[in-house]
Amino acid sequence: MKIAVDAMGGDKGSQAIVSAIKEFLVDNDDVEIIVFGDQEQLKELPSSCRIVHAPDVVPMEAGALEVIRMKNSSMYKALSTMKEEGLDAVVSTGSTGGFLSAATLILKLLPGLKRAALVTAFPTIIKGKKVVVLDAGANNENSPEELVQFAYMGRAYHQALFDVDSPKTYLLSNGTEANKGSPAVKKAHELLINNNFPGFKGNLEAREVLKGEADILVADGFSGNILLKGAEGTAKTMSNMIKDIFKKNLWTKIGYLFVAKGFKNMSETMDYKSTGGAMLLGINGVVVKAHGNSDAYAFKNALRVAKKMVDYQVVSKIKEIGKSGQ
Amino acid sequence: MKIAVDAMGGDKGSQAIVSAIKEFLVDNDDVEIIVFGDQEQLKELPSSCRIVHAPDVVPMEAGALEVIRMKNSSMYKALSTMKEEGLDAVVSTGSTGGFLSAATLILKLLPGLKRAALVTAFPTIIKGKKVVVLDAGANNENSPEELVQFAYMGRAYHQALFDVDSPKTYLLSNGTEANKGSPAVKKAHELLINNNFPGFKGNLEAREVLKGEADILVADGFSGNILLKGAEGTAKTMSNMIKDIFKKNLWTKIGYLFVAKGFKNMSETMDYKSTGGAMLLGINGVVVKAHGNSDAYAFKNALRVAKKMVDYQVVSKIKEIGKSGQ
Repeated sequence: MKIAVDAMGGDKGSQAIVSAIKEFLVDNDDVEIIVFGDQEQLKELPSSCRIVHAPDVVPMEAGALEVIRMKNSSMYKALSTMKEEGLDAVVSTGSTGGFLSAATLILKLLPGLKRAALVTAFPTIIKGKKVVVLDAGANNENSPEELVQFAYMGRAYHQALFDVDSPKTYLLSNGTEANKGSPAVKKAHELLINNNFPGFKGNLEAREVLKGEADILVADGFSGNILLKGAEGTAKTMSNMIKDIFKKNLWTKIGYLFVAKGFKNMSETMDYKSTGGAMLLGINGVVVKAHGNSDAYAFKNALRVAKKMVDYQVVSKIKEIGKSGQ
Repeated sequence: MKIAVDAMGGDKGSQAIVSAIKEFLVDNDDVEIIVFGDQEQLKELPSSCRIVHAPDVVPMEAGALEVIRMKNSSMYKALSTMKEEGLDAVVSTGSTGGFLSAATLILKLLPGLKRAALVTAFPTIIKGKKVVVLDAGANNENSPEELVQFAYMGRAYHQALFDVDSPKTYLLSNGTEANKGSPAVKKAHELLINNNFPGFKGNLEAREVLKGEADILVADGFSGNILLKGAEGTAKTMSNMIKDIFKKNLWTKIGYLFVAKGFKNMSETMDYKSTGGAMLLGINGVVVKAHGNSDAYAFKNALRVAKKMVDYQVVSKIKEIGKSGQ
């Protein structure tokens, strides 16, 4: 198995990525990692890694065309080498928009698929349980037929990552009844029922997502993005408030000692870093986007997700969805 | 000033509503309240209230046509009496869908307005500051022109409730740049710029809403609903986790004593009950929907919002928006 790593463009610098690769290889010495970046910053990588010098960093606001013009950027080189050499996967922590759109342009959509979708695993209050959400923001709008394909792709992704026999799939909507939702959601609901989609359970309201009833949540890219960022913003705001409460004075610091364990568990439950970033589904290759502020722990999880996707042959499984003409 | 109150259908029963009215009248003895409900349950109301016996309760899942057929329901009687007698406002804690759609059918959209929008004031981390969000879910999709009208209506509502000279208005989107968003959001952005909309500041991502930079946030009904319910669900989930942490054993209960004040402040900041429910804008009359689980405190706030809207003549101001053909 060969995984390309774009080592530039993350908020924490390439050192975090070097550490992540070292730790990952301890348990996965059968994987070959090809690392793209400034070779000066990559000296501490183990000798088993191939290093490709590509020092330019794609700016955060770059689009696909800009990435493709930057021939010496780590991102472009990682994607084009993947295409040329048939590497199995690519992982990047750089510019989201640039990475996703350049990956689609260079690696191409799988035949029969209408749109790629960004998928992520989101925490729930059920210990260890994540809900798979897609599209998390690769698209600005989606047709009912695209939502149906997302449901099939989400199921393939879920089965690769988690050991659940019959995952429950829901549509994100503004009401639980079948006749509630945007026009696209209402029509997709009808299509999923007509298709006898395995494990389709109907609509889910945004306030229920964290409860963990759903395994897979299908949304158009615009509202999926709003759900995820809204929940992330609320959780972060409350976490900051909690920190301020405990830091206030000596007494509140003493108070913290009595409940430190509980609050640590809570922040682990709500921690998106353990989910290993997001993956672009529907593309000819495993394309993983780690969070821009990934530390070594988060980036190692992103590498693990990439490996699981290759092991489980998610790309071939999604190819079947395109062929079946769903 | 005359306000109609639908006293049935709330989760806490009509007793909470009776208490709310009594408390409200202490400071507002110039307001006449007409209360619709089961007269047996309304005996303790002060003699200054007019009571209209209308004992039937509209079920939670009812639509407009069902409300209109239920001639003896408190909701139908409140709305039809408002229409017949020209009452200034109506407040209900019953079925949201039924109330909003029946209000639109009976009281009618103001001339020139394309759609009604549900508006609510949402908490932010800035002390005492709320952000006004619309549409919170009265519509399943909205055109760019409807979003522009929502911006004008939101401004009129904000100026009635808050003392801010030039409120900042944003569009909810999946990116801050002008070219990010659903097709409707992108076009609405362009129209607001072309209109020189006062205080228009561009797009806002969902994760920024609680930070309190925006005074008014404009969204289509589908994604507005997802934002609000997603944030509410996350906040509630975390609050429950916090309660469980402190309740765990004697030591954690002792820990709570050191930080009780901070956590009480935090839950006040995040408390949606202080915002007094939501209002349907664009209708010929002040229409306030209190939360289904309103206690006396929340319902009193809903009555206060209704009074402010009448005092500030929000309906006439919105009539001007319709006339101007925005």
